[in-house]
Amino acid sequence: MRLGEKITVGILGMGVVGTGVAKILLNQSQLLSERTGKNFHLKTVVDLDWERDRGVDLAGVKTTTNFDELVADPEIEIVVETIGGIEPACSMVRQALAAGKHVVTANKALIALKGEALFKEAKGNGVELRFEASVGGGIPIIKSLREGLVANKIKSMYGIINGTSNYILTRMHQEGMGFDAALQEAQAKGFAEADPTLDVGGGDAAHKLTILASLAAGGFVDFNAIPVEGITELTTLDINFAKSFGYVIKLLAIYRSDGEKLDLRVHPTLVPGDHLLAAVNNELNAIFVTGDYVGDTMFYGPGAGQLPTASAIVSDLADLSHLLAAGSEVAVTPRIKPEKKVSLFTIKEIANRFYLRLFTLDQPGILTQIAGALGQYGISISSVVQLETHGAGDYVPIVLLTHEASEQAMFKAIAAIKEFPFVRPDILRLRLFK
Amino acid sequence: MRLGEKITVGILGMGVVGTGVAKILLNQSQLLSERTGKNFHLKTVVDLDWERDRGVDLAGVKTTTNFDELVADPEIEIVVETIGGIEPACSMVRQALAAGKHVVTANKALIALKGEALFKEAKGNGVELRFEASVGGGIPIIKSLREGLVANKIKSMYGIINGTSNYILTRMHQEGMGFDAALQEAQAKGFAEADPTLDVGGGDAAHKLTILASLAAGGFVDFNAIPVEGITELTTLDINFAKSFGYVIKLLAIYRSDGEKLDLRVHPTLVPGDHLLAAVNNELNAIFVTGDYVGDTMFYGPGAGQLPTASAIVSDLADLSHLLAAGSEVAVTPRIKPEKKVSLFTIKEIANRFYLRLFTLDQPGILTQIAGALGQYGISISSVVQLETHGAGDYVPIVLLTHEASEQAMFKAIAAIKEFPFVRPDILRLRLFK
Repeated sequence: MRLGEKITVGILGMGVVGTGVAKILLNQSQLLSERTGKNFHLKTVVDLDWERDRGVDLAGVKTTTNFDELVADPEIEIVVETIGGIEPACSMVRQALAAGKHVVTANKALIALKGEALFKEAKGNGVELRFEASVGGGIPIIKSLREGLVANKIKSMYGIINGTSNYILTRMHQEGMGFDAALQEAQAKGFAEADPTLDVGGGDAAHKLTILASLAAGGFVDFNAIPVEGITELTTLDINFAKSFGYVIKLLAIYRSDGEKLDLRVHPTLVPGDHLLAAVNNELNAIFVTGDYVGDTMFYGPGAGQLPTASAIVSDLADLSHLLAAGSEVAVTPRIKPEKKVSLFTIKEIANRFYLRLFTLDQPGILTQIAGALGQYGISISSVVQLETHGAGDYVPIVLLTHEASEQAMFKAIAAIKEFPFVRPDILRLRLFK
Repeated sequence: MRLGEKITVGILGMGVVGTGVAKILLNQSQLLSERTGKNFHLKTVVDLDWERDRGVDLAGVKTTTNFDELVADPEIEIVVETIGGIEPACSMVRQALAAGKHVVTANKALIALKGEALFKEAKGNGVELRFEASVGGGIPIIKSLREGLVANKIKSMYGIINGTSNYILTRMHQEGMGFDAALQEAQAKGFAEADPTLDVGGGDAAHKLTILASLAAGGFVDFNAIPVEGITELTTLDINFAKSFGYVIKLLAIYRSDGEKLDLRVHPTLVPGDHLLAAVNNELNAIFVTGDYVGDTMFYGPGAGQLPTASAIVSDLADLSHLLAAGSEVAVTPRIKPEKKVSLFTIKEIANRFYLRLFTLDQPGILTQIAGALGQYGISISSVVQLETHGAGDYVPIVLLTHEASEQAMFKAIAAIKEFPFVRPDILRLRLFK
């Protein structure tokens, strides 16, 4: 046993998160040593920009712009990848794995899109690729799924796993702000990127769902097979209608399994106001996980940010230090097996309750015609709100909640409703939590 | 590496939880084998009663009343202790450890009261003693604290970790039930024991807090040094007053650290209605943990029950199977070190905001005199509610919320207030969340 031995680490990419990892390794070294029995030595950090002040004292650490100084150094056992994005991160991670180094990453796009090839590369070289920080920031959700709930088939997961979207929706819900104003506020507070497409469009949540679903199912899930809808079409009107029905709208990443096939989706969802997920606000994240033995659990915390994300990365370093102590051949069995085929339900096989918001001219008999169009496809209405018009020729909103109906039936019904001359084309269709 | 090898397990105590472990090992064996690379073989189960039908098929498992058949069997590598209570569990666990067997237990009283001696015994024999199921049932809180949040000093923890009390408080809050009626309902539903003292008195939560605090602090905490108050004095009046002030009363196990000393307590606490802990209802548990790097996190789930608790025990078995594969000398460094001294704040050093409920005769000037008594000890009032009397000679309730004051000042002020002839002696003093 290598108790007290040195574990030598390099960081690739000294942006916000990489700097956070350096801070923890340098400032929390005594605690880490006490708890793990190992001494973490941050030897080399690689970045292109060494002008910027990062707020951390790197005295004694080799700073370089040359990746080769890291990957070719036989002393470095673990590489932390905190560049983000696909390239050059992917090539560099491959090189590090090929050089026999364990890799720890926070890069959700990389794991979601290139995971299968990278895990194969890691296995072929007898090293580990760890990714606790890739989903839920500081929340130990990967460890909880892989180890804490190891005895469970995962029946469902509902994740609020995009902090930007959750911040925007919270502000819209609590303060009555419009989408654009809430987005601007999120950007001003650093919770949203200058280009927020990946966040508000649902792509980021879908990357993370790909990872969670692959772990839970034990086989690789194809990111491109996940239906994704973002929150950009939501208005304060919808937030308020949902509220009046007793719901909060959240962008959910959804995993549902019938034991054979998976139902995976990312979309805004009407969550009952008394569900614990409805109380997850601002930029915070939570994953509500139901296992066949454990029942309902929830894991809550900061989904992003320098230090929470670094906290998760360092937990991977600590785990790896124990594996290193035992010798590389005792790697924990990979939980995602390339040979395991994962089947998804097609959208036709999925049924939901729906929220439908449309604007119509204020004419007699309109509701009857809409109900008729829905009924033609077997869809029945559970609640309806129609507001009075504000003047002749104005469009008025009608909101309907339906009983459970197939996605396909709803698709056809909406197409039929759009044909009515008194209906505006901007029909919004959301789904209810189930 | 012993991939695919057999891990032989024995269960000591086939009550509710032990039976749950047998169910998972027997019914979920394929999944466990896929995920861990090991085959768990349940060889021997020990109990005194073999008349009862446990709802699990034990064909192929040796059933015995004789503990020696388990402890003397060299093939058995891991013993699951699910007897509960101190004796005979403690002696048997010691014997199993002394025989070189790893032990997994759900026994919170055992770990809280006998942990130091048992961990020493385990270390001396080169084996592990695991206890994930001892706190929070199926919630992987021990693993999360020990591994997931390894990079963090724990600044605070607020745990709803007694399901019985939380169920009773939820029913009182949501349905307006009295304490006795809610307790009876909890007993009828199997959420409370026939003798509920350990649950509603706070002792069970204090056992669990002892474990959480020892892990977080890295040294053994003395259970007897934790101030404990239960929920038996609470009335619907208090629940409703708290609600009117915007609070929900929860029995909290509290850990607060200033980096040097710990403030540990178990008592009913007024939690702000918009805090996530206020939404943890019925028999569910949650632990709200704040680390210096990760920030705020929360872990939620079933705190008890056959299958959730068994799920946690099996996660310990899976972890141990990886250690066994690597050879016993790679045991993860123990996180609780006997040599680490843990200092607690004395109650005199602790300040809180208080809720004070008292009954007084309806006479002029009473509030002034009470405020005067509080002011004499430096305690100022932030809110007050005094209800009208219902008839001459009746006592009327007065409820006060105070600004922060020392425990000692409040103790003295209450003694002074009790001297007033117009005050009934049953003064209730609660604390506000901070």
